[in-house]
Amino acid sequence: MPNRPLTYARAHRARFLAELKRFVRFPSVSAQPGHAKDVRACAAWLAEHLGRIGMHGARVIPTPRHPIVYAEWKGAPGRPTVLIYGHYDVQPADPLQEWTTPPFAPAVRGRHLHGRGASDDKGQLFAHVKALESYLQTARRLPVNVKCLFEGEEEIGSPHLEPFVERHRRALAADAAVMSDTRMLAPDQPALTYSLRGGLGLELEVTGPKRDLHSGTFGGAVHNPLQALCEVVAGLHDAEGRIAIPGFYDRVRQPDERERSYMATVGPPDAKILADAGAGRAWGEPGWSLYERTTVRPSLAVTGLTGGYQGEGSKAVIPSRATAKLNFRLVPDQDPREIEILARRHVAGATPSTVRSRVTSLMRARPAEVDRRHPAVRAAAFAYRRGFRAAPVFLRSGGSIPVVSVFQEVLGIPTALMGFALPDDRLHAPDERFFLPNFERGIATCLAYLEEMATVRPRVAGKAAAAAEALS
Amino acid sequence: MPNRPLTYARAHRARFLAELKRFVRFPSVSAQPGHAKDVRACAAWLAEHLGRIGMHGARVIPTPRHPIVYAEWKGAPGRPTVLIYGHYDVQPADPLQEWTTPPFAPAVRGRHLHGRGASDDKGQLFAHVKALESYLQTARRLPVNVKCLFEGEEEIGSPHLEPFVERHRRALAADAAVMSDTRMLAPDQPALTYSLRGGLGLELEVTGPKRDLHSGTFGGAVHNPLQALCEVVAGLHDAEGRIAIPGFYDRVRQPDERERSYMATVGPPDAKILADAGAGRAWGEPGWSLYERTTVRPSLAVTGLTGGYQGEGSKAVIPSRATAKLNFRLVPDQDPREIEILARRHVAGATPSTVRSRVTSLMRARPAEVDRRHPAVRAAAFAYRRGFRAAPVFLRSGGSIPVVSVFQEVLGIPTALMGFALPDDRLHAPDERFFLPNFERGIATCLAYLEEMATVRPRVAGKAAAAAEALS
Repeated sequence: MPNRPLTYARAHRARFLAELKRFVRFPSVSAQPGHAKDVRACAAWLAEHLGRIGMHGARVIPTPRHPIVYAEWKGAPGRPTVLIYGHYDVQPADPLQEWTTPPFAPAVRGRHLHGRGASDDKGQLFAHVKALESYLQTARRLPVNVKCLFEGEEEIGSPHLEPFVERHRRALAADAAVMSDTRMLAPDQPALTYSLRGGLGLELEVTGPKRDLHSGTFGGAVHNPLQALCEVVAGLHDAEGRIAIPGFYDRVRQPDERERSYMATVGPPDAKILADAGAGRAWGEPGWSLYERTTVRPSLAVTGLTGGYQGEGSKAVIPSRATAKLNFRLVPDQDPREIEILARRHVAGATPSTVRSRVTSLMRARPAEVDRRHPAVRAAAFAYRRGFRAAPVFLRSGGSIPVVSVFQEVLGIPTALMGFALPDDRLHAPDERFFLPNFERGIATCLAYLEEMATVRPRVAGKAAAAAEALS
Repeated sequence: MPNRPLTYARAHRARFLAELKRFVRFPSVSAQPGHAKDVRACAAWLAEHLGRIGMHGARVIPTPRHPIVYAEWKGAPGRPTVLIYGHYDVQPADPLQEWTTPPFAPAVRGRHLHGRGASDDKGQLFAHVKALESYLQTARRLPVNVKCLFEGEEEIGSPHLEPFVERHRRALAADAAVMSDTRMLAPDQPALTYSLRGGLGLELEVTGPKRDLHSGTFGGAVHNPLQALCEVVAGLHDAEGRIAIPGFYDRVRQPDERERSYMATVGPPDAKILADAGAGRAWGEPGWSLYERTTVRPSLAVTGLTGGYQGEGSKAVIPSRATAKLNFRLVPDQDPREIEILARRHVAGATPSTVRSRVTSLMRARPAEVDRRHPAVRAAAFAYRRGFRAAPVFLRSGGSIPVVSVFQEVLGIPTALMGFALPDDRLHAPDERFFLPNFERGIATCLAYLEEMATVRPRVAGKAAAAAEALS
């Protein structure tokens, strides 16, 4: 029997790409208030698109900041319910001058689509949407019940998703969640992610004199906030690359020898990680491989520094303030709130009495782990075999997807992290791109996933979901 | 006998202020290439103005970057020749959002003219121009020969002034130079500056991975250039505030006990300097007063830090590069070129092997001292008594005016640093302002200075200058 949805997807390849480019064209940067309107416009377009392909009840649901897009199809009573998650917001695009083509003018070069969000996460999310369309437009039904939950705040730490899921936990009830927002090892080597690091974003501000001062007149007499900031930031790590905040490692769960040996077998070797990073030399916590340092060990990155004169040439100024943005990645059983308390205490103690410091929270996400043997995860593994003709490896990720712990804790369901990104997709960086063969194979994999999930025995939650429970 | 020039200056007070506002309106920011046209326009306006008030040979002379404005009056053979120096370029105006009124829309509030350059140095330079006008328009002559040399590159370290003065050393021959680009202690307490610190501006760039990386994926495995930059910058000072570059203090000339005691008598106490700085606490090299730390001791200020994401919220990025701007202030007998070599060596040694660093030169200026007993300096002291009805104190400045050492070394003449700025003029900072009573008293002082200089015995150089030597 010919696979009609797959045939449909192949026949409409060019239109699918054109639609993806339209999707990428929205500068839906969630972190920047100036783009709030673009985020809304992107949400409206996506909801409209979901309705057009045959999903039901497609709508834009406001949150205190950026809206959630929801749609569902509940025509398979007795069958399992799959919650498809994705995010339509993107990272900021700067530094703009480092893009070969503008970030929001998607451009195909070779076999890649270039643009901010092309891979993270619009391209991957859209593979699911096009799979749904291919099914609905050929079979007039789906093999399972489906609920689509696409958020607009993933890149700012999903601040309103948890309360939303809590408020709508009955309407969102499902047997499993699936999302494509992680990476494979290589174009022919898919990977299922089974752990994610948590996150904690802080902004550290150091202030000194009331206003900017002339560096000639006052240089040598007052503590320069830029210099004091450097001193505080330099003190966050010890000389060997460990995080120097007292108590920081107290709750870090040690992987057992069996897990370390599994990771050493399936995970990328140090040389591969360095090559992907474009970095000459490794750095970090002694005693761990780079794969371990970026997955089962926590980290701290300074993601931004700013203060004083930043133009060309020089300006003779002692600025009155300077700021650093800090990005912690946390592992089980670290709690972002507890780490924030430790970090605030450490910064307060490390700030010289000649300046003042202030710490502001930017985001928090708990770390998450998924059981590799869960039927919904195994269904994703089978789907990859059909879509990519290769069995996936099981990997840990260094990134954070806050919703995974939310689905686990609030809905009680696992999430299959069935990603289609590649290590050189330049996520969060200039010239982000999506490997177009992965878009097509991704659609095939999403189609296969829906079919595989049809064979999974639904839980109680699944039955409830298939009933008349509606999102209020 | 009524002082006709002074009467003229008082009668034209309102027009003089209107003209100064026109002068301040030019955004003649020498550090920013985008303002090169504005610098040129400002130079053209100033040259035209000098011709209009009766100076001879007023012209704009190109240099490889920003032009010099020159004019002269040589109608007093046998009398001394005074070289009036000033600069019409200004510091960058950012951070723009911290200005009460726009930096280049000069505004009078109370007794102050607000605007970038209002005090440093357009207002002070213009006091000389208006004194020349007041003399020329009433007496049809000047009491001494005058050469005006107004440069457009002071705020970027006067890179082309020294070769210009060397090339035109005969045409620029004079008995003394005078400039008003320093500060008084208070509105009723004028001050003659007799030493200036030298300067050295460096840019330090740290680079790591070839492109920006996702801080989740790679956090913990590669050395973050922002963090490495903070480590290098933090290591530039020791814990007590001394500069930690080996050899840095080797050539610092120790002031003798007599000089220290004089400085303690006439100089501002620590509390005054802290109040002027708007800083709560002192900082810096132990064993020296704040006045000493900012004048006879060298200093190092980080004047700018930049790297990574600087917008609102957060971005999960390990940036590929980060930069810091460093501003050294040097004292006799430190040599900026030698200090640069020491700084480069120190930075190279302090850079971890996991990143790369690069140092670029931005500016260099030698420190300078002027003999307090020179007749041209005494003439300035007398002029202050007439203009401000108060005897000046003799002060050291922490700032740098590269031309003073150039005039000393190339032309063999001292410079009278007869400034009209006040400590709270916010030089180089937002809301820079000029105290308008100092504009009027400054004009009176400049008039008196020309008359006092007429009584000084001209040197050989002075006679040569009065001859037909022309600027080629």
